[in-house]
Amino acid sequence: MLSTETKITIPFHDVDSLRVAWHGHYVKYFEIARCQLLESFDYSYEQMIESGYAWPVVDMRIKYVKPLRFNQRVVVETQLAEWEYRLKIKYLIRDANSGVTLTKGYTIQVAVDMETQEICLESPLALKTKLGKI
Amino acid sequence: MLSTETKITIPFHDVDSLRVAWHGHYVKYFEIARCQLLESFDYSYEQMIESGYAWPVVDMRIKYVKPLRFNQRVVVETQLAEWEYRLKIKYLIRDANSGVTLTKGYTIQVAVDMETQEICLESPLALKTKLGKI
Amino acid sequence: MLSTETKITIPFHDVDSLRVAWHGHYVKYFEIARCQLLESFDYSYEQMIESGYAWPVVDMRIKYVKPLRFNQRVVVETQLAEWEYRLKIKYLIRDANSGVTLTKGYTIQVAVDMETQEICLESPLALKTKLGKI
Amino acid sequence: MLSTETKITIPFHDVDSLRVAWHGHYVKYFEIARCQLLESFDYSYEQMIESGYAWPVVDMRIKYVKPLRFNQRVVVETQLAEWEYRLKIKYLIRDANSGVTLTKGYTIQVAVDMETQEICLESPLALKTKLGKI
Repeated sequence: MLSTETKITIPFHDVDSLRVAWHGHYVKYFEIARCQLLESFDYSYEQMIESGYAWPVVDMRIKYVKPLRFNQRVVVETQLAEWEYRLKIKYLIRDANSGVTLTKGYTIQVAVDMETQEICLESPLALKTKLGKI
Repeated sequence: MLSTETKITIPFHDVDSLRVAWHGHYVKYFEIARCQLLESFDYSYEQMIESGYAWPVVDMRIKYVKPLRFNQRVVVETQLAEWEYRLKIKYLIRDANSGVTLTKGYTIQVAVDMETQEICLESPLALKTKLGKI
Repeated sequence: MLSTETKITIPFHDVDSLRVAWHGHYVKYFEIARCQLLESFDYSYEQMIESGYAWPVVDMRIKYVKPLRFNQRVVVETQLAEWEYRLKIKYLIRDANSGVTLTKGYTIQVAVDMETQEICLESPLALKTKLGKI
Repeated sequence: MLSTETKITIPFHDVDSLRVAWHGHYVKYFEIARCQLLESFDYSYEQMIESGYAWPVVDMRIKYVKPLRFNQRVVVETQLAEWEYRLKIKYLIRDANSGVTLTKGYTIQVAVDMETQEICLESPLALKTKLGKI
């Protein structure tokens, strides 16, 4: 199963008045990790567009287990969980030192044909070729 | 059932290179609407802190039905769905003109006693009093 | 002189761990006000693009006089200060109740021909027509 | 003169509909680089607070020379330009590969005594000691 690990340090401007990372900023951490996962099999955002498909996120869930704090070093682990009909990517954020689980989540993306603007009910060949799954 | 409607205009700085609002910015729209809902029963973020409880978001889900675009006027509808053990708020984003559903989602918050830092397994009296549910 | 006033309420997600609006978020307040100013003479971002010119911000200055706080109601006043060679817009943020000055700043934008990608040394007719300054 | 270099990759969520990094996001790049500069002489944000002083940004200027694009690798160079009465830090963003200058700017911070909330007309000993300038 495809997976990656991305190191992130929580910046000051992500921390709210309760001294924890504001819950909306996690979407950025997921995206930075997702970009690295997609690049790992040669299907970056730019390559998606070149292939004729946009892949908007249509569903996202985030479970906040423990707070993230300013300057905390974390690792965002990704796993490609589904790809045949849609891209489902799972995320796990751990503390970089202790390994303690901080956050769990997933995103689901579907292919949209950029010419017709139609949603694809199955992942296009462009993705499957990259994954060697034809 | 408690509910509110909040009008938002999608700003330029929320729109990404595919000319739609980036999916992470929706968390802000939810929060602006949630603040209005909480104020409607006199339990704003400041009042939460004064009551001795923080209410971190521990779970969030967003389903992106149709994209939001620059300058689009939308309405974020909220509903207080659960309150006895946790706060579950549901969101529905509609186009302000056509009424078409654009986004669905929810957030779940739990009370954390700010002195002991312990999670409350039941909503504290501070909330129930506000809701007249003792 | 062209000018507008835009009301903004500082949202929770803009407030940092020192309980004031993080200084980078002011750029959003300026932009929301600038969009209203540009719309007031019928030259919105969309109309800029339609006219064949992008107007990137090339210079920005912000003087932070007093902090902004969560839920504070402020008014962003704009003034069109220059337009012949470039767009210079001045900003003044005041407390909506007391009128006290909180922030001063300006942005400078230049026209870029979207076909040639060249910077215009003088503002194009598209802008001057809108301003009735031919 | 104290100076640092910080590498940043422009993320997708910072890029606007004109396919360049939105001008407000540069404030984050400056801050990430500033944090590294301050840590280099042992006066991080946390250490500032411990020393009894907040150091709000009171003035900021950014000159946008060339646009930043998605996935571009850049280097943010910082220089400590003034420290006796206030902290003035200069920034230069260059392309990581070509070395071409993309952005120039500065920030000015003043010390605020966290007990009295008064602005210090001279930098406190806490800073000067760190800089070995007593």
